[in-house]
Amino acid sequence: MLDTSSPHVRAVLPLLYVAWADGVLVPSEADTIRRQIRAQDWIDASTREEICGHLDPQSPPTPTQYFRWIRALKEGAAQTSVTTRCSLAELGVSIAAGGSDGAALPEPSRRALEDIEAALNIDGEEVLSDLLGERPEPEPPAVEAPFEVDALTALLDGTHADLRERVRTLLQDPVFAYRPDLDTPAYREQVLHWCERLAEQGLGGLGYPEEHGGDGDMGKFITVFETLAYHDLSLVIKFGVQFGLFGGSIHRLGTENHHEAYLEPAASLELPGCFAMTEWGHGSNVRELETTARYDPAAEEFVINTPHDEARKEWIGNAAAHGRMATVFAQLHTDGEEHGVHAFLVPIRTEDGTPMPRVRIEDCGEKMGLNGVDNGRLWFDKVRIPRENLLDRYGRVAPDGSYDSPIPSPGKRFFTMLSTLVGGRISVARAGLSAAKSGLTIAVRYGNRRRQFGPKDEPEVPLLDYRTHKRRLLPRLATTYALHFALDDLTTRFAATGRDASLDTIEAEANALKAYATWHTTDTLQEAREACGGQGYRADNRIGRLKADTDVFTTFEGDNTVLMLQVAKGLLSDFRREFRDMNLLGMARFVADGMATRVTELN
Amino acid sequence: MLDTSSPHVRAVLPLLYVAWADGVLVPSEADTIRRQIRAQDWIDASTREEICGHLDPQSPPTPTQYFRWIRALKEGAAQTSVTTRCSLAELGVSIAAGGSDGAALPEPSRRALEDIEAALNIDGEEVLSDLLGERPEPEPPAVEAPFEVDALTALLDGTHADLRERVRTLLQDPVFAYRPDLDTPAYREQVLHWCERLAEQGLGGLGYPEEHGGDGDMGKFITVFETLAYHDLSLVIKFGVQFGLFGGSIHRLGTENHHEAYLEPAASLELPGCFAMTEWGHGSNVRELETTARYDPAAEEFVINTPHDEARKEWIGNAAAHGRMATVFAQLHTDGEEHGVHAFLVPIRTEDGTPMPRVRIEDCGEKMGLNGVDNGRLWFDKVRIPRENLLDRYGRVAPDGSYDSPIPSPGKRFFTMLSTLVGGRISVARAGLSAAKSGLTIAVRYGNRRRQFGPKDEPEVPLLDYRTHKRRLLPRLATTYALHFALDDLTTRFAATGRDASLDTIEAEANALKAYATWHTTDTLQEAREACGGQGYRADNRIGRLKADTDVFTTFEGDNTVLMLQVAKGLLSDFRREFRDMNLLGMARFVADGMATRVTELN
Ligand SMILES: Cc1cc2nc3c(=O)[nH]c(=O)nc-3n(C[C@H](O)[C@H](O)[C@H](O)COP(=O)(O)OP(=O)(O)OC[C@H]3O[C@@H](n4cnc5c(N)ncnc54)[C@H](O)[C@@H]3O)c2cc1C
Ligand SMILES: Cc1cc2nc3c(=O)[nH]c(=O)nc-3n(C[C@H](O)[C@H](O)[C@H](O)COP(=O)(O)OP(=O)(O)OC[C@H]3O[C@@H](n4cnc5c(N)ncnc54)[C@H](O)[C@@H]3O)c2cc1C
Repeated sequence: MLDTSSPHVRAVLPLLYVAWADGVLVPSEADTIRRQIRAQDWIDASTREEICGHLDPQSPPTPTQYFRWIRALKEGAAQTSVTTRCSLAELGVSIAAGGSDGAALPEPSRRALEDIEAALNIDGEEVLSDLLGERPEPEPPAVEAPFEVDALTALLDGTHADLRERVRTLLQDPVFAYRPDLDTPAYREQVLHWCERLAEQGLGGLGYPEEHGGDGDMGKFITVFETLAYHDLSLVIKFGVQFGLFGGSIHRLGTENHHEAYLEPAASLELPGCFAMTEWGHGSNVRELETTARYDPAAEEFVINTPHDEARKEWIGNAAAHGRMATVFAQLHTDGEEHGVHAFLVPIRTEDGTPMPRVRIEDCGEKMGLNGVDNGRLWFDKVRIPRENLLDRYGRVAPDGSYDSPIPSPGKRFFTMLSTLVGGRISVARAGLSAAKSGLTIAVRYGNRRRQFGPKDEPEVPLLDYRTHKRRLLPRLATTYALHFALDDLTTRFAATGRDASLDTIEAEANALKAYATWHTTDTLQEAREACGGQGYRADNRIGRLKADTDVFTTFEGDNTVLMLQVAKGLLSDFRREFRDMNLLGMARFVADGMATRVTELN
Repeated sequence: MLDTSSPHVRAVLPLLYVAWADGVLVPSEADTIRRQIRAQDWIDASTREEICGHLDPQSPPTPTQYFRWIRALKEGAAQTSVTTRCSLAELGVSIAAGGSDGAALPEPSRRALEDIEAALNIDGEEVLSDLLGERPEPEPPAVEAPFEVDALTALLDGTHADLRERVRTLLQDPVFAYRPDLDTPAYREQVLHWCERLAEQGLGGLGYPEEHGGDGDMGKFITVFETLAYHDLSLVIKFGVQFGLFGGSIHRLGTENHHEAYLEPAASLELPGCFAMTEWGHGSNVRELETTARYDPAAEEFVINTPHDEARKEWIGNAAAHGRMATVFAQLHTDGEEHGVHAFLVPIRTEDGTPMPRVRIEDCGEKMGLNGVDNGRLWFDKVRIPRENLLDRYGRVAPDGSYDSPIPSPGKRFFTMLSTLVGGRISVARAGLSAAKSGLTIAVRYGNRRRQFGPKDEPEVPLLDYRTHKRRLLPRLATTYALHFALDDLTTRFAATGRDASLDTIEAEANALKAYATWHTTDTLQEAREACGGQGYRADNRIGRLKADTDVFTTFEGDNTVLMLQVAKGLLSDFRREFRDMNLLGMARFVADGMATRVTELN
């Protein structure tokens, strides 16, 4: 049994400890140390041999012996001032000096020990932090922010800070409390009920003209949308379908009579409505959707028809349960001519909620998320609607069936109609960003409190002190700030654009930012989930829900890949026009081919 | 009104059509064309002026006029042999020749038209595919595989093809039918019931020694695990907790008496059990968990205790509802010494399912996924268990309390104990990959059938024909194949390693591949979801469920980031040993610092 109170033994104890620390002492290593130990004539001969006896790969120390060594090292170290920055040689020398007989070691001993240590290529710091001290209680994290919180808040809240604050206050009302236990039918009713409360507050019609009870300010509407997205994502999407897509299509594609008749009922939710563009067969390629609207001059009516099953309307929000009217996109036929996609107001349910005759409705069923929104399918079996139900800002049909439009080319007309959806795209990008912010807040806060691993003589380390953890969260936080300001700026410019001005550049930016921001959301929420470890997987941590609800943001309001192809194509066409350079033409062709002729548009 | 039957008009009609196609004719463009038209003396003078009249940016054609031009172009083109590869000039010349009077145009006209076309920098192909033909019905996609399907299947099924086939057949039994409508309690019972059916088939104990009713083949066990993961992920995790973690800990950390007493009841599910390692306060940093096991030599018992709330066992699979025993990891104290983390068998429920005295159990509640697994929390209030319940392969306590171990260093002992979990890590990587394969199958099949956009005279294009779509799915498919074979190879080597052989290199590979494969799963399922567009968001499309269930695979059985840091650290230490080079040392420090001292281990 090694006498751990002997200064000579104590001097080499750190090396003995390390030699056995990974359990297996390789013969060549053992030889090296033994050779060196035997050369230390300041250690008396018998002790030298005893030490060498403990360096035999064939007879490791027992756990109890090993435990005693550790205890001797710890106790010895506690009486000295060694830190984790010291070498093992220093530790040995120090605890030898502090040993029972107090005798200091001869001067050359330290250098000799250092040589052994170097020969063994040991990371002394790691070993020492294993040995030294007990872990004290963690300090509470500092709470003082190193910047002016109010100033940053004001900057982030932006132009419509008051409105934001109003929405936040509203959402704190117990009426808006989460009810995680609701099944899908009850959740849908809950979300409808919430939308009604928001409508009562006049928040639905903010984007509509003042003469129809609105505020004429899309900036305000988008602010509300973005703020609601910190709460429940089904709520924000239902809100968007009713007031943004349904009401917005009437506002942007209709004319005075439609505004007069429908904007106020839409804003008050007296008339719940849908935006029925997508078909089963055509999602991104809206231009080729197959629902028809044939004009019958004898009756002065349009006949809305679903020619076959692939032409059924698919995924239509508000259709499965609550919608009573739908803006239906269909190919207009009149006077023997085909004029492309136009929008028509089609009643789909009576006031008591039964489907209208010749309208068939089906529920799209459970989704990965957003189950508070009732998405449905619609079939029209030669449904007749009055001529006035054509939303006729970009195309009119006279009673005799003759067609007129301020835009002669059907292509240009189509794109102009769809550019009215830019507001929706900006809204979705901002709502996605709100969810990313929620997820980041959860993960960053957790990372600042959760401690895991750490040096022995210090509290465990908050996750955010690890470089990897910082790099997982902080660049995403920075991008989130950047996107916030980019989208805020875009919103401001969009809101300032008159109803008749061209949206061309704003549209291209909205397409690119919608795709970029929603992909950023998906990526950020994934990282936030993982950064919370197991706790990120709890349902009540919210990240799972945020992930599932926003997953479709990359698909709807314009599929991201298709949007990005469009943006790229636009940029390359611009180049082509500017330079007329064959190489650039080649590049443009490459992208254009990738889309097989042309990606028309998407909703 | 332009006479679209005149050959001269017809010759320039394609140019007129294009000039107005994007709705706005810029004055400078209009000037260019007018100048060129006026120079064409083969067109009679009045027609020239009439054409120029239709090139006035101030008075666009009416939609009806424009529609007539289009009809004339389409009808004209139909009588000729122009294709989308022709220029607009060729189209003009051809339809002029096919016009009412049949007169061919003079030779220079084509070159003149080509000059105008070039000056306008038009993409003729795009314009022509807009104009030409109707879209025919799509051809059904080819079904013949261009490789030997049976040979590839055999290669993928590998060594245990028969066993795989047996599991697949079993899963087709109506007993295993999905029941998407189940609530959490019913789903948990369903999954337990499924595990019992698998146990009846002898599939639970495949990895245990033959003398205890097993097959002694971890390769077989992992094959079953991987194959089950094509079905239900909660099933595979519950299966893994019971037979892999609970039973496996008895097999790998226990000795003969434990094997005799517990392996058969574990394999038959007569004794449902848990693997209780993680605590609320310590997940990745298992080495510092705080549950204690103090030996009481008077009673020859261990006292298992949860000293405070952060030391409660957290996330323990099978704990919330079904487990009757748990392998509990705790700090062993005996004979006045602390010997680090050891595993103890602790009964937690009676046969009738009530918690044992002094054991408190709580449900972890709803999770983002895997809700068929009952994860729970455990508190032990000085629970006494017999001395024999220490799983004592790597550490024994004699009746008098003295401790002994084949591995003297607590660090090495700890890592050796945990290396017995390598099988679980390989299993989880393979199960994740199964889910990625399911998702890819869904997305690739859909991409091969779903058509969207396309040239006018051809069927819409299957998504997989688009370069972007290919690039989204096929590299991931290739990586999936690569990972399949890498993991298969690793499994074979792992299964061939004796119980007493060192797992060092296999462990490092398992850590790296576990992290890489499960991140690949997360990424692949995300892309698969998006590649299916809206249909990817349907609950019954399965991708949502696969995503939610596998999301935690990057966290449990070793958090991926921590595993990767460990792998990197291991590699750098190897380098350091080999080269003793300061620069490499610097690199090693960098990574090591990033982990603040050392990442010990993780479960
Ligand atoms: C929850 C939900 C709510 C919705 N609400 C509504 C609503 O209220 N009203 C409404 O009208 N619609 C709604 N939609 C429909 C939505 O707008 C469409 O799903 C979307 O436009 C995409 O169309 P798609 O699903 O047919 O996908 P597709 O267009 O078939 O695209 C499938 C995949 O193919 C890729 N792809 C497509 N074309 C190309 C190309 N040319 N090149 C390369 N890749 C290509 C896409 O990137 C995508 O990954 C909703 C959808 C969902 C899921
Ligand atoms: C559904 C589910 C089932 C489970 N089943 C079981 C079970 O049956 N038995 C059982 O014992 N356990 C089980 N677990 C627990 C699981 O093993 C742990 O969640 C896992 O080990 C991670 O620990 P943690 O959650 O405490 O995360 P933490 O260790 O706190 O990690 C949180 C985050 O910090 C990062 N991090 C941690 N340390 C470092 C570092 N040094 N450097 C840089 N980054 C770091 C991680 O990457 C992670 O992103 C289960 C967990 C879940 C969610």
